[in-house]
Amino acid sequence: MKTRGVPMNNTFASRMRHIRSSAIRELLKLTERPDIISFAGGLPAPELFPVEDMKTAAIDVLNGDGPASLQYSTTEGFLPLRKEIVKRMAKIGAHVSPDEVLVVSGSQQALDFCGKVFLDPGDVVIVERPSYLGAINAFRAYEARFVDIPMDDDGMIVEELELALKRNPRAKLIYTIPDFQNPTGRTLAATRRKRVVELAAEYGVHVIEDNPYGELRFEGAIPAPLKSLEIDHNVIYLGSFSKIFCPGFRLGWISAHPDLLQKFVFVKQSADLQSSTFSQKVTARYFEMFDIEKHISRIVTTYRRRRDLMLGEIEKQFPSCIKVTRSQGGLFTWAELPQHVDTQQLLQESVKRQVAFVPGGPFFVDPGFDNTMRLNYSNSTDEQIVEGIRRLGQVLRGI
Amino acid sequence: MKTRGVPMNNTFASRMRHIRSSAIRELLKLTERPDIISFAGGLPAPELFPVEDMKTAAIDVLNGDGPASLQYSTTEGFLPLRKEIVKRMAKIGAHVSPDEVLVVSGSQQALDFCGKVFLDPGDVVIVERPSYLGAINAFRAYEARFVDIPMDDDGMIVEELELALKRNPRAKLIYTIPDFQNPTGRTLAATRRKRVVELAAEYGVHVIEDNPYGELRFEGAIPAPLKSLEIDHNVIYLGSFSKIFCPGFRLGWISAHPDLLQKFVFVKQSADLQSSTFSQKVTARYFEMFDIEKHISRIVTTYRRRRDLMLGEIEKQFPSCIKVTRSQGGLFTWAELPQHVDTQQLLQESVKRQVAFVPGGPFFVDPGFDNTMRLNYSNSTDEQIVEGIRRLGQVLRGI
Repeated sequence: MKTRGVPMNNTFASRMRHIRSSAIRELLKLTERPDIISFAGGLPAPELFPVEDMKTAAIDVLNGDGPASLQYSTTEGFLPLRKEIVKRMAKIGAHVSPDEVLVVSGSQQALDFCGKVFLDPGDVVIVERPSYLGAINAFRAYEARFVDIPMDDDGMIVEELELALKRNPRAKLIYTIPDFQNPTGRTLAATRRKRVVELAAEYGVHVIEDNPYGELRFEGAIPAPLKSLEIDHNVIYLGSFSKIFCPGFRLGWISAHPDLLQKFVFVKQSADLQSSTFSQKVTARYFEMFDIEKHISRIVTTYRRRRDLMLGEIEKQFPSCIKVTRSQGGLFTWAELPQHVDTQQLLQESVKRQVAFVPGGPFFVDPGFDNTMRLNYSNSTDEQIVEGIRRLGQVLRGI
Repeated sequence: MKTRGVPMNNTFASRMRHIRSSAIRELLKLTERPDIISFAGGLPAPELFPVEDMKTAAIDVLNGDGPASLQYSTTEGFLPLRKEIVKRMAKIGAHVSPDEVLVVSGSQQALDFCGKVFLDPGDVVIVERPSYLGAINAFRAYEARFVDIPMDDDGMIVEELELALKRNPRAKLIYTIPDFQNPTGRTLAATRRKRVVELAAEYGVHVIEDNPYGELRFEGAIPAPLKSLEIDHNVIYLGSFSKIFCPGFRLGWISAHPDLLQKFVFVKQSADLQSSTFSQKVTARYFEMFDIEKHISRIVTTYRRRRDLMLGEIEKQFPSCIKVTRSQGGLFTWAELPQHVDTQQLLQESVKRQVAFVPGGPFFVDPGFDNTMRLNYSNSTDEQIVEGIRRLGQVLRGI
């Protein structure tokens, strides 16, 4: 059928066959009704945003640096912000310099740029099974092929990764979210991290380490980031301010060897010139003026309590055949239901009872995993968690 | 040579052969020395940014709507801002509805998205000769081929456009900056606008109307935008807040038929999810609280004076063999020098005398136009204009 607004003898680029709306975004619209208790989104808790402190920082920037904070600035990003990023990375054990950091407009942009820099149509991206939907969509826009690696509670199974690398000479990237993965909440075990980096070096592919949640750890030691274990600079690290500060400023970063980072700088020039000067300056000023560690620990305390509450209520309310992840941090837990259950259908039932989640199917590159669901605990009050899990339990007892 | 940080048996995507640093951006670095009078950039005058009013708007947003202004929001953009955009477009004679508007992160992102939606490798983009370097770079990243159309003082010569369309069956897009073009400052004549749209309809290609400067008109009537003349929705209109408000917020927009716009929405989801919630809300609030028309007229008055001053000084200081555009608005004038002059070399001479411009060569898709230069008047004081043109005159009298 002809799309209106497109002349008949014109066509879209071939990549457009692979670009579609994110299932999550469309679902979010459905579940935005105020009467629905939603565990569907991946939103941080807005009541924890440091609004007053950000106002102070914003006023300070406009008073001290007004015109320059509203003007064009460099593609690489505001140097004081890149220095703050270097500190955040050092805190989790990844030591880089500011010239190894490019500021981008959220990690979604970083994912898009990884596709643009590396992928020709048909190139293979190795992902976890399941993986982050937004990454799958970003790489799909570059006509990638996907090979997915089974996971257990310790993350990607490295023996399977080795087999996949052996079988796929067109593999260019290994994409992993090692800490509190989206959607499963799982963390890649320390010994496996080392092995992923070694295998990547052996097969000449890059690892993309996507780490938006790493600082939101509720318990246990911080495992070394893959970036700190890299061999011949083969890890591209993606970070984000969305979960430790706020998502509405759209700020994230890419860290890679300067020679490689230069490619990303060129891509950013043609993609959007630079990220918001004002967002960058206010964020940097906030970090100078206020105690981000204290702020993060407030987030961690709240999310930990919400996770505990959700897992406790699930224990009471869900049938025992349903297996749930105990995430050690981050925003999500993940449930596996009996094989015959289709969670897309279940969502319709749930919405009738005014509770929502995200069906797991879209997080897989292949069909056949419709018996899964992702539950978000960061953005619900205690009362909503108790009541929402109670309602979901009623639906689930009917499966 | 091996790029460091890239494993030996890995390669970049084939498009990366075409992605390079914007010559302007690299030059800007050279000319950023504070002792240099620079007519090189394309920056708006920062002293005209409404810093105090924006502070008021920002505080109002954070007080009234704090957490929501820092949270994720929809890909399409903040509805009150899209309504303001509709008003801006109506003012110049293009009547659209908010569902025909997608907010993007500056028009550079719009250009990138046009490439992503339409261009397969080898597809042809028809551009003006010369054209905006950032657009050429954005389309080059999708491995476009370019066909350029000669211009005169009335813009693109439409008979040449028709020939080009006849000869290039793979033409997908006609890219034009009809008002105060970057780099030449020329405006596409009213009769030609109608013909461009007709030819596009006849040959089944889209027109991209890139209009960041249209509201900065110093004199003369506003010609109808191509969008208002479109046939079967064949014009994609790109707008920007960078020149009438501020560039540091990174906000622009795409207007197209809703069916076509949906493709851009999908692309934006995978590219960066959304533009900054906070930037959008503050901009919309500013438009509600303050008089943007008065603000724009302040910009117009200042830039008009600077243009008059620069053209007057050029008249006095430059050799008479140099032809200069009299722009009726916008930020730039354009000089054509005798054939034998290479302005890249001339720039080195000029920098020694502490004055800078942008050599025109990079604005052309083919070599052979090195006898041209772009001069920016929006971002220099009267004193800088007088002194800078005096110095440049000294250099030019040596050619």
